[in-house]
Amino acid sequence: MSESQKNTWRSKMHEVIYEADTPLGKWFDIFLLVAIVASVAVVMLESIKSFRADHAELLFRLEWAFTIFFSIEYIARIICVGKPFRYIFSFMGLVDLLSILPTYIGLFVTGTQSLLVIRTIRLLRIFRIFKIARYLSEAQTLMKALKASRPKITVFMGAVISLVIIMGTFMYMIEGDAHGFTSIPKSVYWAIVTLTTVGYGDIAPQTPLGQTLASMIMIMGYAIIAVPTGIVSVELSNVQQDKKITTRVCAECSQEGHDDDAVHCKYCGAKL
Amino acid sequence: MSESQKNTWRSKMHEVIYEADTPLGKWFDIFLLVAIVASVAVVMLESIKSFRADHAELLFRLEWAFTIFFSIEYIARIICVGKPFRYIFSFMGLVDLLSILPTYIGLFVTGTQSLLVIRTIRLLRIFRIFKIARYLSEAQTLMKALKASRPKITVFMGAVISLVIIMGTFMYMIEGDAHGFTSIPKSVYWAIVTLTTVGYGDIAPQTPLGQTLASMIMIMGYAIIAVPTGIVSVELSNVQQDKKITTRVCAECSQEGHDDDAVHCKYCGAKL
Amino acid sequence: MSESQKNTWRSKMHEVIYEADTPLGKWFDIFLLVAIVASVAVVMLESIKSFRADHAELLFRLEWAFTIFFSIEYIARIICVGKPFRYIFSFMGLVDLLSILPTYIGLFVTGTQSLLVIRTIRLLRIFRIFKIARYLSEAQTLMKALKASRPKITVFMGAVISLVIIMGTFMYMIEGDAHGFTSIPKSVYWAIVTLTTVGYGDIAPQTPLGQTLASMIMIMGYAIIAVPTGIVSVELSNVQQDKKITTRVCAECSQEGHDDDAVHCKYCGAKL
Amino acid sequence: MSESQKNTWRSKMHEVIYEADTPLGKWFDIFLLVAIVASVAVVMLESIKSFRADHAELLFRLEWAFTIFFSIEYIARIICVGKPFRYIFSFMGLVDLLSILPTYIGLFVTGTQSLLVIRTIRLLRIFRIFKIARYLSEAQTLMKALKASRPKITVFMGAVISLVIIMGTFMYMIEGDAHGFTSIPKSVYWAIVTLTTVGYGDIAPQTPLGQTLASMIMIMGYAIIAVPTGIVSVELSNVQQDKKITTRVCAECSQEGHDDDAVHCKYCGAKL
Repeated sequence: MSESQKNTWRSKMHEVIYEADTPLGKWFDIFLLVAIVASVAVVMLESIKSFRADHAELLFRLEWAFTIFFSIEYIARIICVGKPFRYIFSFMGLVDLLSILPTYIGLFVTGTQSLLVIRTIRLLRIFRIFKIARYLSEAQTLMKALKASRPKITVFMGAVISLVIIMGTFMYMIEGDAHGFTSIPKSVYWAIVTLTTVGYGDIAPQTPLGQTLASMIMIMGYAIIAVPTGIVSVELSNVQQDKKITTRVCAECSQEGHDDDAVHCKYCGAKL
Repeated sequence: MSESQKNTWRSKMHEVIYEADTPLGKWFDIFLLVAIVASVAVVMLESIKSFRADHAELLFRLEWAFTIFFSIEYIARIICVGKPFRYIFSFMGLVDLLSILPTYIGLFVTGTQSLLVIRTIRLLRIFRIFKIARYLSEAQTLMKALKASRPKITVFMGAVISLVIIMGTFMYMIEGDAHGFTSIPKSVYWAIVTLTTVGYGDIAPQTPLGQTLASMIMIMGYAIIAVPTGIVSVELSNVQQDKKITTRVCAECSQEGHDDDAVHCKYCGAKL
Repeated sequence: MSESQKNTWRSKMHEVIYEADTPLGKWFDIFLLVAIVASVAVVMLESIKSFRADHAELLFRLEWAFTIFFSIEYIARIICVGKPFRYIFSFMGLVDLLSILPTYIGLFVTGTQSLLVIRTIRLLRIFRIFKIARYLSEAQTLMKALKASRPKITVFMGAVISLVIIMGTFMYMIEGDAHGFTSIPKSVYWAIVTLTTVGYGDIAPQTPLGQTLASMIMIMGYAIIAVPTGIVSVELSNVQQDKKITTRVCAECSQEGHDDDAVHCKYCGAKL
Repeated sequence: MSESQKNTWRSKMHEVIYEADTPLGKWFDIFLLVAIVASVAVVMLESIKSFRADHAELLFRLEWAFTIFFSIEYIARIICVGKPFRYIFSFMGLVDLLSILPTYIGLFVTGTQSLLVIRTIRLLRIFRIFKIARYLSEAQTLMKALKASRPKITVFMGAVISLVIIMGTFMYMIEGDAHGFTSIPKSVYWAIVTLTTVGYGDIAPQTPLGQTLASMIMIMGYAIIAVPTGIVSVELSNVQQDKKITTRVCAECSQEGHDDDAVHCKYCGAKL
């Protein structure tokens, strides 16, 4: 931001809306957080039939209040940002737009039911708020660990999906139509329900052979759940240890990553 | 505690009730523990209709026996403590009061049913007993690790709740009223039941699309459960390592990393 | 064992039955393992009504074959062991006796049904076999880690049980008789089913408030499961690291537990 | 491979089919992956009755298209490999054969239903593709950790199976025929469903005693799940640490623990 811009109202507004260092910026963020959560709550309440029947008027007014507030906020964001188009077509910009559009569309189209889902997209706006969170660095640590675990988790998921399809097919052959295993996809669905230990019980094996195979799947699932947990534990521990590695840089070769107890640079041998 | 107080009966009583170093204090704590567990058991048995019908007399007498014992203990605690008001309005003081009040109120008000819950608050008194537990340091280690994990767990919980609301809304749109997904809150409830792998089966998806989405939620839940586990593992490991390694530095060779029980430097042999 | 005994048939038998270093001892153990597993399988098959009706004769013969074999083994164990009474009243000795008694009792008493359970106690005999397992040291590592985790797990279990009783009581008040929460113990049972993510669905909350509380319990259970996992992970890792500590003993003060990289004894400063 | 062979069309084909370093080899692998997944999808869709009725013609044609493609690939693999018989009787060779046979058999035999399972064996062919995966080293790390955990997991599984049989037998005695526990194997099945926290709810204890025992099993299952997770976490962490630290020793100061990428000793600066 250039010196000249700094004192205009646009930069002032930018500070309030986009940053969270000033008291005003912080309060704006907190107020926005409350508005987002409340507006999602309204959408949820609206989906309850009896509530909708009793409080149609109230819900209608609240919905419009939130929409107008979010619209003003959306326009303000466009005005005060440096590159408006970049914002509009960014992920967050699209989420912001999607969270106000449904109410306007509802004016012209009836059957707002299907717009309910789009309205709950508002919840994604909460991520915008994370900047005030003092938890930001925590989230970054988590994200780093999850990113580092991704290749291993992908391999693991591939193995789980193969297993589930093969097991589901076997159960389809063993139990068959009569016991609810009406097709392979449904049997695979059952295998997922079982392996993940969810176990609805809407479909359950009834033949001794099926129950034996199911037992094996369950015990497998019990052992298998250890794998992603182990992966994430190790990566989280790595991420935290990386933090512990000193930030010392070798004066000779400028390389980093030296251990705490290193006396000499491990790359060029110069004294640290 | 001043020297003069030490020999009075009040300080003697204080020793017995509040401390656990003397044999008498220990026995008092054990007796109290048994009384608390027994009184909670009585409340639980009273809630069983057939048992209440058959043993009304016995339950009534036991209830009063416990209440009178706890009342005497409550008064004794007030008498022998240094700052009575501080105790009365402390969390533990209020719990102590709440565990005797309902029986007295029951004398004047009928419909004791709603007082049953308040009576089970007695169970919280068990925490008072933890002072005899040789497990105390263990509990502290656990609490420290959980406290250290809190910011990460909070971020994680925020992500889980957002996920659950969005997924619940999608399922509400896909499955709809006919299959038990009667409102968004109910669908969110279903999503929580599924993601946490509880899986009651009171509501279960029946359309192929719904079952596909449900499968995705389950597999996600399977991977997601790894995250809090990893967090707690790492923090517990950190807490335990912090305990073991002192920050002492050898005066001779300036090296660190000495064990708690080290008397001499393990590198140069100098006295620490 | 004295030199003179070594060549008698008793010591020979002792070698075969109690030890597993000689080929004969190994084969005896493997044969015994097969016999135990087979005899438990017979008990399990006998409990299936249709199977019992069809194969009564076969089951009867097999049962007696196993009983006679185990009886001979039991007598042999008594004969060849040094202190017979010590063996008879040891845990394993009682298990050995209990695994043959029911069949003999069945001769005089009808209604063997209730003896079925005692017969499955035979399965405990499998632990006797672990001595051939090359997995023994693995089992010891596991046991050590679990023993080290016990105090923490105990504290954790105490917290979980308190939580479950309080939550169960609340659900009993909220949902009440009409929705299956007929008493506090039953509600506590439901709370355990939910918190451990088992989720049978035989009892499930039906009021919005109950479902909200249930959701909270589930998410709690999801986070809580991280705690024992973290505890065991850390203890297992500790046990394995302890193994890495050298077995060097200081020549001066005879103390152990020195680190890999220690040059001097950390207790007396003497050179190692 | 000898120099002379290198330019023949057989070695060219070998390069495309068996290797993934050349662009052509990569494209072949990707195309094969898509074909395998698509052919499994066709098998799954075929098992859905309504879909089979509507699209019998399409499914028939797709099935033959995939079979012919896989047949050509199978013959090509035999032709261009050095030792054809070794390939044919290798695990992957048999899987390749099994994935084309069912369709040909279906020409002569009716009742293709039972051949559906064999056809899904095709999915195993996906493992062939893993060679292109940049995840290969990840899979190796996972496999190494799982292999290292095997003895501990085996001991653990043995304990779990013993526990489940004993618990199942007790429940069979307590609940009995009337509540769905019709035989010991069925009760053991229930115990597995409960201990692994799957909890279908098709069989659930109904007597107070049975529910108490069930609660104990659930809480045990809750604690027990910590064990395999702990095992895998520790082994994964070991495998990763083994990777990072070389066993190189500095020639000057004889100290160990140097990183993989170290060129100079981090303690004295001498060249490694």
